[in-house]
Amino acid sequence: MPIFKPINENEASDKVKKVFEDIKSSRKIEEVPNFWKYIANDPETLERTWSSMKQVMKKGSLDEVTKELIYVAVSVSNGCEYCIRSHSAAAIKKGATKEMLSEMIAVTGMANEANRLVEGYQVELDEKFK
Amino acid sequence: MPIFKPINENEASDKVKKVFEDIKSSRKIEEVPNFWKYIANDPETLERTWSSMKQVMKKGSLDEVTKELIYVAVSVSNGCEYCIRSHSAAAIKKGATKEMLSEMIAVTGMANEANRLVEGYQVELDEKFK
Amino acid sequence: MPIFKPINENEASDKVKKVFEDIKSSRKIEEVPNFWKYIANDPETLERTWSSMKQVMKKGSLDEVTKELIYVAVSVSNGCEYCIRSHSAAAIKKGATKEMLSEMIAVTGMANEANRLVEGYQVELDEKFK
Amino acid sequence: MPIFKPINENEASDKVKKVFEDIKSSRKIEEVPNFWKYIANDPETLERTWSSMKQVMKKGSLDEVTKELIYVAVSVSNGCEYCIRSHSAAAIKKGATKEMLSEMIAVTGMANEANRLVEGYQVELDEKFK
Amino acid sequence: MPIFKPINENEASDKVKKVFEDIKSSRKIEEVPNFWKYIANDPETLERTWSSMKQVMKKGSLDEVTKELIYVAVSVSNGCEYCIRSHSAAAIKKGATKEMLSEMIAVTGMANEANRLVEGYQVELDEKFK
Amino acid sequence: MPIFKPINENEASDKVKKVFEDIKSSRKIEEVPNFWKYIANDPETLERTWSSMKQVMKKGSLDEVTKELIYVAVSVSNGCEYCIRSHSAAAIKKGATKEMLSEMIAVTGMANEANRLVEGYQVELDEKFK
Repeated sequence: MPIFKPINENEASDKVKKVFEDIKSSRKIEEVPNFWKYIANDPETLERTWSSMKQVMKKGSLDEVTKELIYVAVSVSNGCEYCIRSHSAAAIKKGATKEMLSEMIAVTGMANEANRLVEGYQVELDEKFK
Repeated sequence: MPIFKPINENEASDKVKKVFEDIKSSRKIEEVPNFWKYIANDPETLERTWSSMKQVMKKGSLDEVTKELIYVAVSVSNGCEYCIRSHSAAAIKKGATKEMLSEMIAVTGMANEANRLVEGYQVELDEKFK
Repeated sequence: MPIFKPINENEASDKVKKVFEDIKSSRKIEEVPNFWKYIANDPETLERTWSSMKQVMKKGSLDEVTKELIYVAVSVSNGCEYCIRSHSAAAIKKGATKEMLSEMIAVTGMANEANRLVEGYQVELDEKFK
Repeated sequence: MPIFKPINENEASDKVKKVFEDIKSSRKIEEVPNFWKYIANDPETLERTWSSMKQVMKKGSLDEVTKELIYVAVSVSNGCEYCIRSHSAAAIKKGATKEMLSEMIAVTGMANEANRLVEGYQVELDEKFK
Repeated sequence: MPIFKPINENEASDKVKKVFEDIKSSRKIEEVPNFWKYIANDPETLERTWSSMKQVMKKGSLDEVTKELIYVAVSVSNGCEYCIRSHSAAAIKKGATKEMLSEMIAVTGMANEANRLVEGYQVELDEKFK
Repeated sequence: MPIFKPINENEASDKVKKVFEDIKSSRKIEEVPNFWKYIANDPETLERTWSSMKQVMKKGSLDEVTKELIYVAVSVSNGCEYCIRSHSAAAIKKGATKEMLSEMIAVTGMANEANRLVEGYQVELDEKFK
């Protein structure tokens, strides 16, 4: 039996409900995704994470699609299925194409390979990077 | 004593030299970076990696700066210092700003945090992602 | 078809059976968990791992609940579902509350985020830590 | 040449200075640690991270020492030297002993080993954890 | 709904079909494994990865079984279920025994444990390794 | 200031000294490597780890060189410099060549790349692996 269950909207405290409403209106969705329902078990973590997520993922020097692609690249390296699926979907909703996702995966694979070649050969820093 | 030493251009075999020349002319640099000098200990890996790197990192649906940012994001997750320093420099050379790098790091941090919240709470896949 | 199958108690060798009995009596459980049944495919690994696990997880300067929380934090970072579920259950059995698990997950997320900020900015060691 | 340099207190913007002051007074230290000086390159990340760090690491169901130990356990798994050194020091400052740190490291090692045994043997979830 | 679907042989482009045929004849199998069918969504990645995989995994100074065992060890560390299952099967097909797989898993677990003891204690390099 | 210091042979307790002697005679070395000197801060971990290491790394179905190569492959994936350097040296001492190490690194890189392609495309298990 799983230890944590998702907190549904109708059983949520007022504090949690407020965040849920903000999630639905900001994201223009009808249903709160499971991620937010689970971390609602800890209302402080819910509030802090939602507020950080909004700040970090909003358009800045980098556009929103690029940020989602970076997010998925990290999740792919960590092998987090939920994170890969939900943020790949978010990337596409914001305008990414399957070609863009494919190229991001290729870069992610390449970087993971080359990172290990660097470690395996114990490559020394070039003077100019010191 | 380190087991592998960098292969310098003057001691390189013809096969290795050819790749070194291509690296310098494609990248418009005077000196082959240490990464390539170390993996030149295994000429097959050198050839294969250089040819893959060129293909993967070239402009496609994603521009070159975005690809470098994704590359650094993965290297940050893996904690590979050489990779972070050399590809952060590459990103800047290709037009990235420090603000763009900072935002990429922020997304990388956020994704790593949220990935672990997902695992910790064992969040179930939403129906729509199945 | 999976390559390894769990070794059940009735088909176990005497050496394996002895460890199984010790697991059940030490843990006060009726059924050997799958983890031990699978690694029983390699009786040496079974014996060695059970003996290490008992030594490492027993009360010392740290109490057993704290040790289980640390164990889960690592498993969350590694994304190992079996490990998270079984040791979260163990933590609760030994007295942890859901609030304690939630706070452990929040710290685990935060540490993973901050670790990557450190790598991304290539933060230098403060003098006093050298 | 490193791309990011630490932001010193005398060159900091008012926004950054305010966070720096809070760090020094909350932690009762004279000098802002390098971590905060580096991420001050991105004032939004500085503010958000400091505020999250204070919330996450404060005494709750878990005491502050336990939280620091969990933090170090994660940093050890990620191999982040700065994070290990600074938070091991923080743990000791808050009351942890070297014995407690040693036991935390032993649990961290054990969990990393057992996580891989689980993956290697592809251990199936026991019925009771489903 | 998953974003990527496997490309089946009858719907594949000529470029993809050619790689599929080579996979089947080199591996002496009737059906292309899912891995190749999925990455066929990006024909360049398919071609490049298949050609690299053949080169890297072929008998050299190390025999093919040893290479498969190393491949699985890495996949176990990364917790990649598909990779563990498919390459454990490949290892067995090429002559590995279950005892060899078990010993590889034991070494992988041990290395993961000891790696963390090294990080936790911040072990300094011995003079002779410098 | 580092928290843990190496325990030198002349200041070691009898329990620690006994393990140190066994390390030197089994490995035919004059000086105890730093790894063992650091974990000697926790004599129980020292004893347990040395006894496990001897059992796991001894010749079995796999020879000692293959085991060292697997050990290094894992350490490369984890980016543990001390572990890579000391066990690469051990591999060579036991008979590995630089070519063998290079091929091991190439396989390690390849596996890390392919693992991420699998995660990125969310490749489904083939029927025959279920």
